[in-house]
Amino acid sequence: RDPAQMEPGLVSVSAVLPAGGSGERLGGSTPKQFCAVQGRPLVSYAVRAMERISWISDIIVVVSPENIETMKTIVEKYGHKRVTVVEGGITRHRSIFNGLKVFAEKEFSSHLLQKPEVVIIHDAVRPFVEEDILSKVVMAAKEHGAAGAIRPLVSTVIASAADGCLDHSLERARYRASEMPQAFLFDIIYEAYQQCTDYDLDYGTECLHLALKYCKTKAKLVEGTADLWKVTYKRDLYAAESIIKDNLSQEVCVISDANETVAQVGFLLSESLKSQIKVEAVSRSQSRNDSHLQSIFSGQCYNFVCVNDKNCAIQESQQLVHMLEKSDIPLLYPVVLILVYLDISGNNSFSIGMEELTSFKKFARGAKKKNILVYGLLIQYK
Amino acid sequence: RDPAQMEPGLVSVSAVLPAGGSGERLGGSTPKQFCAVQGRPLVSYAVRAMERISWISDIIVVVSPENIETMKTIVEKYGHKRVTVVEGGITRHRSIFNGLKVFAEKEFSSHLLQKPEVVIIHDAVRPFVEEDILSKVVMAAKEHGAAGAIRPLVSTVIASAADGCLDHSLERARYRASEMPQAFLFDIIYEAYQQCTDYDLDYGTECLHLALKYCKTKAKLVEGTADLWKVTYKRDLYAAESIIKDNLSQEVCVISDANETVAQVGFLLSESLKSQIKVEAVSRSQSRNDSHLQSIFSGQCYNFVCVNDKNCAIQESQQLVHMLEKSDIPLLYPVVLILVYLDISGNNSFSIGMEELTSFKKFARGAKKKNILVYGLLIQYK
Repeated sequence: RDPAQMEPGLVSVSAVLPAGGSGERLGGSTPKQFCAVQGRPLVSYAVRAMERISWISDIIVVVSPENIETMKTIVEKYGHKRVTVVEGGITRHRSIFNGLKVFAEKEFSSHLLQKPEVVIIHDAVRPFVEEDILSKVVMAAKEHGAAGAIRPLVSTVIASAADGCLDHSLERARYRASEMPQAFLFDIIYEAYQQCTDYDLDYGTECLHLALKYCKTKAKLVEGTADLWKVTYKRDLYAAESIIKDNLSQEVCVISDANETVAQVGFLLSESLKSQIKVEAVSRSQSRNDSHLQSIFSGQCYNFVCVNDKNCAIQESQQLVHMLEKSDIPLLYPVVLILVYLDISGNNSFSIGMEELTSFKKFARGAKKKNILVYGLLIQYK
Repeated sequence: RDPAQMEPGLVSVSAVLPAGGSGERLGGSTPKQFCAVQGRPLVSYAVRAMERISWISDIIVVVSPENIETMKTIVEKYGHKRVTVVEGGITRHRSIFNGLKVFAEKEFSSHLLQKPEVVIIHDAVRPFVEEDILSKVVMAAKEHGAAGAIRPLVSTVIASAADGCLDHSLERARYRASEMPQAFLFDIIYEAYQQCTDYDLDYGTECLHLALKYCKTKAKLVEGTADLWKVTYKRDLYAAESIIKDNLSQEVCVISDANETVAQVGFLLSESLKSQIKVEAVSRSQSRNDSHLQSIFSGQCYNFVCVNDKNCAIQESQQLVHMLEKSDIPLLYPVVLILVYLDISGNNSFSIGMEELTSFKKFARGAKKKNILVYGLLIQYK
């Protein structure tokens, strides 16, 4: 039987996200999990990736003592739900152990959470984890006691001798990089942490290793996708941005108003986009119907292009943003809203007033906080 | 004695860049070494990184048969020198072997190149290699016969059993990722390639391993910087862009003309930049003196901000670009030229004519081909 075919909804599952790293390798003073990617902290992407999966009950985010307040602010600001923020230890293993204790030790937490059958462990700095791989590791953990995502090695791994020279190189095909997410029967990983030594807690990095060493549980290895990589260096933050852009929905909704010229441009735009992307064309009057637009939105369409007359008020756009907010779907990727203002006056210069520009910028900044990226285009149309 | 203290100029050195990869993992149809980063193919960065080092004699770029013409076009377009384009084999090792043959086998090449004492092997998809690490591996190769850059492992490496479960995990601290550049005494690596089996040529990936197996040469391992990573996935192309931006010179030259208001803005800009970056302030009349500007440029200052009156002709900017081109310094990173046009007319709207915009765009596109990135800013100044 293929574990991936089973239904994780029948297992009780919670998740622990260690987010206590100091980000030394990133070279900045802000730990990488709190660095902004497209205006939102990396940890918020990882939390959202868990949150949008209905069969994950509790999400434990473990942060170092000095970042408890920062994390609580992020949870509030981005409206994360089912999240408990827990104080971490001085190493990764100690932080994960603290996260697990919330389910098992009354004295550790004022509100003992329901102990799950399977616990997912995932890094806060791996923002793009899909339901598919989570489901696979959970079902494999239920069957084998432990499971983890793996990836092919990018570089050959070598061992050096004491003199700093090559001792031997590993045959690349025989080895894999151990990545996240991992999942465990709660009782197994919790016992492994209880049994393991201080040396393990201080110098170890691999949960699968603890399950093997202390519970004789051989983890099932599950091939993951390239997107599971860990944000380690500063360049990875840029890479994360590129992934967000690449993963934006392959569907776009074009909204144009009734003005003849505007409707014509909207039509031409829809037609020319159709060769590259799935297009839903909506008139302005339809777009005023919240439920119509929400159904488009729920159907995984996250890109909106609004074609307006230049003189059209910003209120229309605000209504649209308000509707998107109200829908309250936790999104892995941001919503993109492109506002196209057509200048059909026939003047020979591009022009926008200072006041308009200021109010537009303010509007865009407000929307960004809600994970909606607003862009404006002023097009001269003759 | 510390090999890094020696002078690579006293050793004859050439470089082989395998660039035959198909870029499967990138997910696109263009092999990654030919993908554009800031408008220039990745391989051109790697070639330039070698070319700007005076003690590297010949640069052999090995590409698959179907990309010979593409590569020759790149060499011509970006004015690369000391480059020989060679046809590769079907695997990485076969391609490197072909590259080495150019120095050793008369029948292989119409123009037998001077055999170097030490040969550098570097990937075309590792665009940012600094003189420091090249010098270190070359001197270590001269002493030990072989040397290669290494990096700490980012993920734990594990071995899987036949049933797809964890067999064991490696202690991360004992192992390293083998990266590029590597360097070898030419006779050693060439002999290793002559001795090795077809299996090695078809399935092996590690040159250090061949030197060890066939010539009993234990390579010296040299810790490299994070920038040595290999462009493997699409996200790495974005990461490469971010590194270019981060590495742009920490010095800026502010040029402003004699108009009182413009000179004042130039002065204010210089003063406010001084807290963040080394600033060289130059007047427009000084900037007309090519040798003055060239000396600034040769001193590793690659960023220029030109403050102009809005009505100032584009010709001034063209002259500046022309001067930068003439200097003919092979650059690892692009030159950035920011043209600030001040609108001091006091009108209450931003405005630029269509014609001006078109000619500016054309100008910027032309400059980009020469690795000069031109940006324009129109600022209303009251």
